[in-house]
Amino acid sequence: MDAENRPVAFAAAGPLRERNALLFNLIEPNLPWLESNGFGFLRVFTYVHFRALLAVILAFGIVILFGRRTIRLLLAMKVRDHPEFYRADINQLMNDKRATPTMGGILIAVAIFTSTLLLADLSSFYVHMAILCVLWLGTLGGVDDYLKLIGAQRRPGSREGLFMHEKLLFQFGLAVVLGLFIHNHGMNNDELGRQMAFALNLPFLKTWEFNEQLGGFEVSRSLIVLPSMAFVLITVMVIAGSSNAVNLTDGMDGLAAGIMAICAFAFTLLALIAGAENLAKWLLIPYIPKSGELAIVAGAMAGSCVGFLWFNCHPAAVFMGDTGSLPLGGLLGYIAVVVRQEFLLLIIGGIFVIEALSVLMQVGYFKVSGGKRIFRCAPIHHHFHLLGWTEQQVVVRFWLLSAILAVIAVATLNLR
Amino acid sequence: MDAENRPVAFAAAGPLRERNALLFNLIEPNLPWLESNGFGFLRVFTYVHFRALLAVILAFGIVILFGRRTIRLLLAMKVRDHPEFYRADINQLMNDKRATPTMGGILIAVAIFTSTLLLADLSSFYVHMAILCVLWLGTLGGVDDYLKLIGAQRRPGSREGLFMHEKLLFQFGLAVVLGLFIHNHGMNNDELGRQMAFALNLPFLKTWEFNEQLGGFEVSRSLIVLPSMAFVLITVMVIAGSSNAVNLTDGMDGLAAGIMAICAFAFTLLALIAGAENLAKWLLIPYIPKSGELAIVAGAMAGSCVGFLWFNCHPAAVFMGDTGSLPLGGLLGYIAVVVRQEFLLLIIGGIFVIEALSVLMQVGYFKVSGGKRIFRCAPIHHHFHLLGWTEQQVVVRFWLLSAILAVIAVATLNLR
Repeated sequence: MDAENRPVAFAAAGPLRERNALLFNLIEPNLPWLESNGFGFLRVFTYVHFRALLAVILAFGIVILFGRRTIRLLLAMKVRDHPEFYRADINQLMNDKRATPTMGGILIAVAIFTSTLLLADLSSFYVHMAILCVLWLGTLGGVDDYLKLIGAQRRPGSREGLFMHEKLLFQFGLAVVLGLFIHNHGMNNDELGRQMAFALNLPFLKTWEFNEQLGGFEVSRSLIVLPSMAFVLITVMVIAGSSNAVNLTDGMDGLAAGIMAICAFAFTLLALIAGAENLAKWLLIPYIPKSGELAIVAGAMAGSCVGFLWFNCHPAAVFMGDTGSLPLGGLLGYIAVVVRQEFLLLIIGGIFVIEALSVLMQVGYFKVSGGKRIFRCAPIHHHFHLLGWTEQQVVVRFWLLSAILAVIAVATLNLR
Repeated sequence: MDAENRPVAFAAAGPLRERNALLFNLIEPNLPWLESNGFGFLRVFTYVHFRALLAVILAFGIVILFGRRTIRLLLAMKVRDHPEFYRADINQLMNDKRATPTMGGILIAVAIFTSTLLLADLSSFYVHMAILCVLWLGTLGGVDDYLKLIGAQRRPGSREGLFMHEKLLFQFGLAVVLGLFIHNHGMNNDELGRQMAFALNLPFLKTWEFNEQLGGFEVSRSLIVLPSMAFVLITVMVIAGSSNAVNLTDGMDGLAAGIMAICAFAFTLLALIAGAENLAKWLLIPYIPKSGELAIVAGAMAGSCVGFLWFNCHPAAVFMGDTGSLPLGGLLGYIAVVVRQEFLLLIIGGIFVIEALSVLMQVGYFKVSGGKRIFRCAPIHHHFHLLGWTEQQVVVRFWLLSAILAVIAVATLNLR
């Protein structure tokens, strides 16, 4: 913003504002009317980190406010999910969950959608894609949950939810759309912007180097920029993978929502850093202009999960179902791709990764070995349950591990 | 640090380092030997935020590593706590806890102590006081827990723990010592330092004002500096109050440890900000030189609580006892006083406040009304338990509220 072009009312508080903008890349829009009418303090809403914190609180409030009546509605509609395990003992352990309604994820999806609309910069491409993601996967999950309801009621022509290939088709479909859109958006940047948008970002890999002649940072000569195909492929894998992994994790009271709350808090921070030029350069990680707005989406994810846990903690009054787990997982993967932190997603969301891997390993080994199993039951949370941990010990311990993984991941930001 | 006096090896990477020091007040000591021998990357350990994150991980690791054998030891020593409630139904609800050992807080105290020694700047006065606090209150709590063990075994001359007035005496004793020491340390500063150390810090109260002639920040003319007596009094109230409130909250599996983990994470952030001149000025809150080192203590508190929850989550294999709750509460209050965030402590630790208030109100009303009660049982977590929430619902929901309170508190930092 050019200081000379500013209206007088705004320029009065100028130097402080300019300094802040320099330090933290705050978007400091022109607010002459507000300034001159004594509402200048409202500029706090132009701070992306403040809006991210508000998004946590707002999304939490929405879920708490509409939680009880949504659950009543779902109970009345008999929206229930009855997964059958091949092990009678797991079915036994899970028996008390048969009266609990599912599809509570509608609360989460609506809270994220609403908070994003109210608090994020709606001119941002990245926000548009986030909204697309939550609507697409929320609808997909909702259809799946709803078909299960119809199926469970054995109405004519009914079936037990979507087929796996249908679900995967729509998940990968969205992932491809997002991959291509993000790619094209990145290509529209100048040279520097393109390098950032497709940078390979790993610990020990510097994105920036300090140039003493320039007295500023320039792109590191050792920076690896992903080719288009690789970028789109990674994006598809991350978004579809994350969405499925969260879906698989969602099998115990509070498990997926709790881990997701922690992951979303971590990505709120990562998005804020990626969108703030000086912070990103200081930590030598890619700077993605406008990606800070995704901190609002991540904040809304965190708040809605914390709110959902109020009802979802053991003994759960409601499950999120695919309506919740698919958009949450998809959004998490999407944000990780945009802020170039896919690798940190593997650490922060380590429990999701392990849950998904346990299923792949179990199924793969079962086929290869002709009927043998690695774990007592997959996904792996059932394995620990069968080992004698109570359900709540599995859930809380997985939360604790997630919290420590998030701290480890954030600490690696300094190792470059 | 004067750039001209630096050895050549250090000056090579100088400008970047100077810039960082300017931005984030990082302590960037002279490391010529390390620099010239290729170990320059170790300077990451001079970053206070990095050491704070490491403290979380280290303290977590210590508790996890020594948890199981400590519990075995406590079981062998039969260190158990059998609180008797006046309500038979609460005694009934808590009946399955009679075989669980207490005094597990020894793990927490040791983890905080060790992590602080290894990672904090031991030349810092604030770190000395933190170590004093954890040793003093850890010992006090340990003596209390141990006397209960002796008492429960009905050995000759035994008694049921310390008397309330003995406990309070030693708690207030420490609080007074800390209050006076912090006060004297603050008085040794220059004029600016004194204003900061005793500033009254509330939302909407600016500590700094931007001076356009100077092109920098100066202390706000409306800043309220607390008189010595008021400062010491507030300090004593906060430290003794916080220590007792956490003690009262520690009555359900995972309750105190979980809330404390969240509070400690929040104060890690607050200490980092208070110790970084530019961040503090940007947020218009007091800048307390060297208080950033307390982020390492707070990080260790968070990590040890997360680790402790591994064993303390329902059904608990161990309780922290006074050995844990007294030093945790005391440290939290102490850190809040030093970084001038007593008011935010009331918000972030809102659950602790409500727990303590519920006891005061219950006891007070009981006396005034001649035997009537406000809550079914105090502290208030029992009240909700009796209302029909399961123990784990009470615990998890109190955690969730703490998380949202922490977000609200951090958001208010912007409102000045």
